[in-house]
Amino acid sequence: MGHITLVSGDGKDAVRTGVTAIRPHPGNMFTEKVPAAIHVINGFGKATGIAQVAELGVLETPIVLTNTLSVGVAWDALCGFMLDSNPGIGRQWGTVNPVVAECNDGYLNDIRGRHVLTEHVTSALLSAGPHCEEGSVGAGTGMSCLGYKGGIGTSSRSLGEYSLGALVLANFGQPGELVIDGVPVGRLLADDNPPAPPGSIVVIVATDAPLSDRQLGRIARRCQAGIARTGSTFGNGSGDFAIAFSTAEKVPHASQGNLVSSRIDDGSMQMAMIFRATIEAVEESIINSLFAARTTYGRDGHTRYGLPLHRVREILYRRGVLGG
Amino acid sequence: MGHITLVSGDGKDAVRTGVTAIRPHPGNMFTEKVPAAIHVINGFGKATGIAQVAELGVLETPIVLTNTLSVGVAWDALCGFMLDSNPGIGRQWGTVNPVVAECNDGYLNDIRGRHVLTEHVTSALLSAGPHCEEGSVGAGTGMSCLGYKGGIGTSSRSLGEYSLGALVLANFGQPGELVIDGVPVGRLLADDNPPAPPGSIVVIVATDAPLSDRQLGRIARRCQAGIARTGSTFGNGSGDFAIAFSTAEKVPHASQGNLVSSRIDDGSMQMAMIFRATIEAVEESIINSLFAARTTYGRDGHTRYGLPLHRVREILYRRGVLGG
Amino acid sequence: MGHITLVSGDGKDAVRTGVTAIRPHPGNMFTEKVPAAIHVINGFGKATGIAQVAELGVLETPIVLTNTLSVGVAWDALCGFMLDSNPGIGRQWGTVNPVVAECNDGYLNDIRGRHVLTEHVTSALLSAGPHCEEGSVGAGTGMSCLGYKGGIGTSSRSLGEYSLGALVLANFGQPGELVIDGVPVGRLLADDNPPAPPGSIVVIVATDAPLSDRQLGRIARRCQAGIARTGSTFGNGSGDFAIAFSTAEKVPHASQGNLVSSRIDDGSMQMAMIFRATIEAVEESIINSLFAARTTYGRDGHTRYGLPLHRVREILYRRGVLGG
Amino acid sequence: MGHITLVSGDGKDAVRTGVTAIRPHPGNMFTEKVPAAIHVINGFGKATGIAQVAELGVLETPIVLTNTLSVGVAWDALCGFMLDSNPGIGRQWGTVNPVVAECNDGYLNDIRGRHVLTEHVTSALLSAGPHCEEGSVGAGTGMSCLGYKGGIGTSSRSLGEYSLGALVLANFGQPGELVIDGVPVGRLLADDNPPAPPGSIVVIVATDAPLSDRQLGRIARRCQAGIARTGSTFGNGSGDFAIAFSTAEKVPHASQGNLVSSRIDDGSMQMAMIFRATIEAVEESIINSLFAARTTYGRDGHTRYGLPLHRVREILYRRGVLGG
Repeated sequence: MGHITLVSGDGKDAVRTGVTAIRPHPGNMFTEKVPAAIHVINGFGKATGIAQVAELGVLETPIVLTNTLSVGVAWDALCGFMLDSNPGIGRQWGTVNPVVAECNDGYLNDIRGRHVLTEHVTSALLSAGPHCEEGSVGAGTGMSCLGYKGGIGTSSRSLGEYSLGALVLANFGQPGELVIDGVPVGRLLADDNPPAPPGSIVVIVATDAPLSDRQLGRIARRCQAGIARTGSTFGNGSGDFAIAFSTAEKVPHASQGNLVSSRIDDGSMQMAMIFRATIEAVEESIINSLFAARTTYGRDGHTRYGLPLHRVREILYRRGVLGG
Repeated sequence: MGHITLVSGDGKDAVRTGVTAIRPHPGNMFTEKVPAAIHVINGFGKATGIAQVAELGVLETPIVLTNTLSVGVAWDALCGFMLDSNPGIGRQWGTVNPVVAECNDGYLNDIRGRHVLTEHVTSALLSAGPHCEEGSVGAGTGMSCLGYKGGIGTSSRSLGEYSLGALVLANFGQPGELVIDGVPVGRLLADDNPPAPPGSIVVIVATDAPLSDRQLGRIARRCQAGIARTGSTFGNGSGDFAIAFSTAEKVPHASQGNLVSSRIDDGSMQMAMIFRATIEAVEESIINSLFAARTTYGRDGHTRYGLPLHRVREILYRRGVLGG
Repeated sequence: MGHITLVSGDGKDAVRTGVTAIRPHPGNMFTEKVPAAIHVINGFGKATGIAQVAELGVLETPIVLTNTLSVGVAWDALCGFMLDSNPGIGRQWGTVNPVVAECNDGYLNDIRGRHVLTEHVTSALLSAGPHCEEGSVGAGTGMSCLGYKGGIGTSSRSLGEYSLGALVLANFGQPGELVIDGVPVGRLLADDNPPAPPGSIVVIVATDAPLSDRQLGRIARRCQAGIARTGSTFGNGSGDFAIAFSTAEKVPHASQGNLVSSRIDDGSMQMAMIFRATIEAVEESIINSLFAARTTYGRDGHTRYGLPLHRVREILYRRGVLGG
Repeated sequence: MGHITLVSGDGKDAVRTGVTAIRPHPGNMFTEKVPAAIHVINGFGKATGIAQVAELGVLETPIVLTNTLSVGVAWDALCGFMLDSNPGIGRQWGTVNPVVAECNDGYLNDIRGRHVLTEHVTSALLSAGPHCEEGSVGAGTGMSCLGYKGGIGTSSRSLGEYSLGALVLANFGQPGELVIDGVPVGRLLADDNPPAPPGSIVVIVATDAPLSDRQLGRIARRCQAGIARTGSTFGNGSGDFAIAFSTAEKVPHASQGNLVSSRIDDGSMQMAMIFRATIEAVEESIINSLFAARTTYGRDGHTRYGLPLHRVREILYRRGVLGG
């Protein structure tokens, strides 16, 4: 994961946006593709690359997250990044399928200004490493979630032999809806936060368990459940997308012979654990994004407050969810 | 809704099954079809009629629910029911698309015996009325849900001008997973219930709000969120299907001229209310099915206990969810 | 493939229907499933089992073809056939997903009479062998295609190391539309055949090439092209479904460890050959069904004439398509 | 339709590309959206905006066609074009869903150079008018089709009260595959044309017939048949997409009350005519693109010859397809 955070200006020109790049592995994604699937939970969104991932079952670029109106520049920059490391693209090798996803940070950010530039995207791609910053960083800089400041969140689960991690760009929901571990925290906080414009969430689930593209689709489809647990009602304008990939197999761009792959049995206990871990990790990632994000002052005097952690803990403690 | 409940025998021949018929309106469904959509949440299920509902956007028969291995006889009986009231089917009018959905009640029921007969289905169709029995009735007779006795549950919401109702055939989940209003009741009850074979849930959402087939698809896709709130992790073997229909428009079998229809604006407050109401009504229907279902002794000495209501209330009260 | 052909009676009670069963391999399909995909070209049809094949990527029963209104009985009989050879179904093994597809033979057959019985389906399943009868046999008995008598047709292609075969139940199209090898034979014949009620086509593509379920989906989606070449305009009421499976892998019902499978590279020359072979074999199967089917007198004095082979050959010869 | 054609340079820097913009109506597409559907025939392509069109059933921007690696800049420019005429986007109105589609012109064009700039896209959008240039213009400048020079083609059909038009960006297929009116012209010409890298086709079908988004999906799905008639075998690397829209209804961005719309009956003769007209118009558009495109010399000495019209006519005449 690599973040570029853009914060500058004020008033109607406030820039509160950024780019987050996810590289499934440190190598060349075009020559070592990974099995993947994308599921559209609510399609009011502009994610690119979906049709080709569905057709071929692989991801062949890093994933770039940014604000909605910067999808074009992010696509172009990601394309350029792939061209630079693969001279065969557009020549003997066909083309490349950039996967970009987005949320609308227009409440805090001058999104119309399209302040994300090619170099920001490239920097995010080049800076990607194993670290895990959360909250108001990268693409999460200007995001709002369930009435509070949202952004990037992560979570992982160990599955014995394998592990699974989730990353979210959380920007969905209305004030009052937040649920944490089953407790209607948003309703109990009763803060008077302003509603956001239509939000969204992008979920990325990564695992090293050996899974086929079809099985990764099953995982992607379960992400809705994790989001639901945090209080979402999947509003009309919420572009909710889930991307799942496995790093267990590297698929070459072109193969001399047949490809051999391994997969977990759909009916195994391991698969049941993966389904459960997916839902839990998505839920936890969203909550983590809220816990990590800080109050942000943005465009036209808009403010999005960070979750009041002290009061939240008090509520959870009173409800018996947190030990004392 | 009409139920036929089949309870007889014991040991390996125990019959604990039935049929539930849902008639969207009391008229002839073939000549007065209703806009509809079916969403597959997890496709380990045998529901019929999906492709045609997707293609034409209408439901043209009542919906019949029963056990998994009785789908064939239910299809045949529903087909016969439609033929009887529509002499033109199979002659000048083309064919009819029976919609049947199912769950696996094999833990309590001798499902291999396929005890549902044509006359049971026909009786359920003929007995359908506005009443709302819940729990271990009709298709719900032998169902298990989240470790307890499940079955039929219903719930509704008023949306001002319109209303929306949900009906579930609840047969999913494993012991310990149950969540009620956010409280992990299943975990807290810590009952030692035996796991069930792969379960399922069928959700039916009905509304009189004017909605197109596409919009009904949006509603059907939101049902997953309501199920998720009750603790489901959408196991491999769970055939989870959602059917949504609107009674606001009657679509004739063949029309002389163009068809005119009205629909709510996707971005309106009404649609937001409908999305939220869908999720809430589905959640509540599932909980209602558990509250209504009673302990059932079934096949080969299997017992599925009803939810221990007194202890559940105590837990909810202690967690501050129920007032005292 | 096994056929049961039902021909009896006359007038309004004329029975001109049947059953065709396709067994992907002679073994137990439930314990040795095969990778598969089903594609819906035009969803005005009642094929069953689609959702589960999409979710799990396997076929776990033979495929049964029959007339539209006999889908229920065929489902029931196929279910029973599977129960008989698998005592674990409905007990420790979960349920089974019968795949039944259909076309409407109501022009020639008293389809409302639902003359297919359980024993006919079972006989078709038991009689299945490697032989290849075509035309007005089995499920093809009462079918009409492009204004002429249709039915069962087959074709195959050798792909070097692998081979591929197509089987169709052809019942689509209107008089005058038939195209053979690019020649508008239907228009040139200018026969005055009566239009058919809404037709359909079921296409089954089988191969021993190692292909994943996703890749089989790609093959299924290409079947539309083969149908298009014979003149179809994919009418509103035509239930056009394509099923593709590979016999290269046997998938157990439950596996102790991970599953290993091999697949052809999507970008290989072999895949290009498979795509082309699919389209050609589907086209040829349809034409073969027309060449094999004989004039049939059916319900209420309806007659469907066999393709006038002599005149067809003359047309093709004149157009330079057939050598002299 | 508006075209910007970019032709300059030679050798490895040869620019043979462009932009074609399709404006469904001359007004503001964001405030007067049109019902639409996009169908993915083969998903090896990078078209954007698909998920949102599926979710909401409307097109809210013009459609921009260009080369594959310029999708990002085209998206960005189309986004900017919409922002300029809609100050509410990204403020009180949420975001906008640019629809861009592409084909790979890398055989003739230095596609890696990404020579399409923002101003080219904007110019194409501003120059859009009712004229119909075909062949090697706009996005079609560098395209190859079935071994010959391809590009833009159009065709239309009158349906009595309504009309329907198709536009293609044709860049698919291999040498020798071309079929014209059923005659295997490509095989008979036996030209020794070099194979192309993986191609693609984008089909746009426009009509003023009143159709719902679901019905437009049915039309989009039938485009595959029109392509099939010209010889395509839908190769692995061919990104084949079909977009259908109706101008009969203008859908506002947000509505005060319910929306009322009219649609043709699915089972009507008019719908049958529309299905047939779609297939014919798509077929004819492709042939027209080949007839209009001229021999083009491009990158690294690559040449793509225009269809040898004289020899083609001779072949068609000999086969009895063209009158003398």
